[in-house]
Amino acid sequence: MRAVNVAIVGATGAVGIELLRILEEREFPVNSLKLLASQRSAGKKLSFRHQEYTVETIDAHQFDQVDIAFFSAGSDVSKEWAPVAVAAGCVVIDNSSAFRMDPSVPLVVPEVNKEMIATHRGIIANPNCSTIILCAALKPIYDAVGINRVVVSTYQAVSGAGHMAMQELEDQVKAYANNEPLSAHILPVKSLSKHYPILFNVIPQIDVPGELGYTKEEWKMIQETQKIFNDYQLRITATTVRVPVMRSHCESVNVETKQKLTVAECRDLISKAPGLRLVDDLAAQEYPMPTDTAGQDLIWVGRIREDTSLENGLNLWIAGDQIRKGAALNAVQIGEQVICDLR
Amino acid sequence: MRAVNVAIVGATGAVGIELLRILEEREFPVNSLKLLASQRSAGKKLSFRHQEYTVETIDAHQFDQVDIAFFSAGSDVSKEWAPVAVAAGCVVIDNSSAFRMDPSVPLVVPEVNKEMIATHRGIIANPNCSTIILCAALKPIYDAVGINRVVVSTYQAVSGAGHMAMQELEDQVKAYANNEPLSAHILPVKSLSKHYPILFNVIPQIDVPGELGYTKEEWKMIQETQKIFNDYQLRITATTVRVPVMRSHCESVNVETKQKLTVAECRDLISKAPGLRLVDDLAAQEYPMPTDTAGQDLIWVGRIREDTSLENGLNLWIAGDQIRKGAALNAVQIGEQVICDLR
Repeated sequence: MRAVNVAIVGATGAVGIELLRILEEREFPVNSLKLLASQRSAGKKLSFRHQEYTVETIDAHQFDQVDIAFFSAGSDVSKEWAPVAVAAGCVVIDNSSAFRMDPSVPLVVPEVNKEMIATHRGIIANPNCSTIILCAALKPIYDAVGINRVVVSTYQAVSGAGHMAMQELEDQVKAYANNEPLSAHILPVKSLSKHYPILFNVIPQIDVPGELGYTKEEWKMIQETQKIFNDYQLRITATTVRVPVMRSHCESVNVETKQKLTVAECRDLISKAPGLRLVDDLAAQEYPMPTDTAGQDLIWVGRIREDTSLENGLNLWIAGDQIRKGAALNAVQIGEQVICDLR
Repeated sequence: MRAVNVAIVGATGAVGIELLRILEEREFPVNSLKLLASQRSAGKKLSFRHQEYTVETIDAHQFDQVDIAFFSAGSDVSKEWAPVAVAAGCVVIDNSSAFRMDPSVPLVVPEVNKEMIATHRGIIANPNCSTIILCAALKPIYDAVGINRVVVSTYQAVSGAGHMAMQELEDQVKAYANNEPLSAHILPVKSLSKHYPILFNVIPQIDVPGELGYTKEEWKMIQETQKIFNDYQLRITATTVRVPVMRSHCESVNVETKQKLTVAECRDLISKAPGLRLVDDLAAQEYPMPTDTAGQDLIWVGRIREDTSLENGLNLWIAGDQIRKGAALNAVQIGEQVICDLR
């Protein structure tokens, strides 16, 4: 594989750190590496392949020699700097929501629509974490029998709100253990006015309010899933919920298929699908749980049951590491394909 | 109201303690009170209306002068002793699952089917906690426009597995704060062989495995809901999940109604329904959360949205105290009606 010059924008964030780790683990062919972040984080040192790199401030010339830039610093940074990077000749793999619904930007989960990567015009969007996990699990079912409708309820880890939210949960645990009051400044949404403790709590709000009483996170799951499957007839509704878990998302997924798929057939499909691991033995108490999937690349799928309320229905329970497959790994997989396409 | 002689079987459990508290709060007309439990708990002292009562061992003569016996000591105790209590002339209000699906035993959520109480032949069953919360919230919608199908995913507190599970979560918090390993002996099901920490985790198993890959908790939600609404055409599927919350259950509920119900109409119905509180203002970050509903009698309903994937669909998010309305309060409400019927 041709070695490329890589930049990571937002290198010090939860996803940025994981990107570095995954590039190393997967022996991504890095020729040169540039770590970029806001001024606040500039000067920090991070290590990659036993070498130390200093985080630099983003500016227009930083992208000059870069082939692939992974952006993971939020929508505003992507909107400002991704076009600059593209103009400098970079391929941008953007983890923010800035360009996901742009019709000219491919939105990619490699297990689902890898072929879209080649259509890019400089930017490839990495979907929302809960969308990636859902789409990867639905893909083998979709291909086998078609899907009419999906009802999904999520159990999302605090890592989705970044390092500070993980620290907040950690601090709340320690405060509780010391009989101190719990303080909350980050969740559910840092920029909004009200914050609630997440320890011993469940918060049915992720991201800011959107249309029709849905949060933006819920719309992301609905609209991004349709775009990834390139199927705007795929009906989907979502309720997205934060739970006091560190870094792996779970989803309770009800699927109405177009044709009958038995539980045995579904298990067989899941067990053979790329990116998935079948963990489904209730009698042996084996099912996906966040404590088991944290740090894992595969999305675990289990609790597969016939939905007895429908002619052609299935219930699934899925869990996947939000920072890895839900963000950094998916972006690196896209990057690997970009390199293949360069050849 | 005529004062009655009351017994509580399982007085030292999480629900038993709450029963005592609620009988006191609601000024239940108690003439005499007997607290019963297994030999292990006999001799413990509990206070009721500033008087101390000693917990006694269950035996056949304990029910002789009792009018109403609240049973909350598990199915095995109910199966053994409820018939004895009935033979002695008691009305048994049973919180276990022992008699719930017995066709001769009314299964009652007072807000839904209070009229069934009068049909009892000695035993009235209190539904499963997650079922009670669901049914109370569905009732006004059911009455207004009919319901075809319900898809529910739960976020259940550890209190549903009793005092020891609450203690286990508490111990795990303290262990984590002290950098000690987490130990687990209770959840998900004490009697089964594998136990998993619940701190920072989500466990998609409540109760033992049942048929078709569903847990018994999931079947309870499905079958009890149909019995309570006396509607075996009501289609329902459930995924029940334990979350690291102390004592309030949440449920993500997708409802397909028979006729169109707008969000505004649904909000209006919920705001007027007995036992419910409408808490639904996403813009103001107001929605039901377990930390707010713990200790509350009302079931909070919010996040009401049109399900855009269906012609007649709604999404709801509900939260209710599992020990109060989910168990003890519902039983006491049944008891109040029993006394009214005695007149």
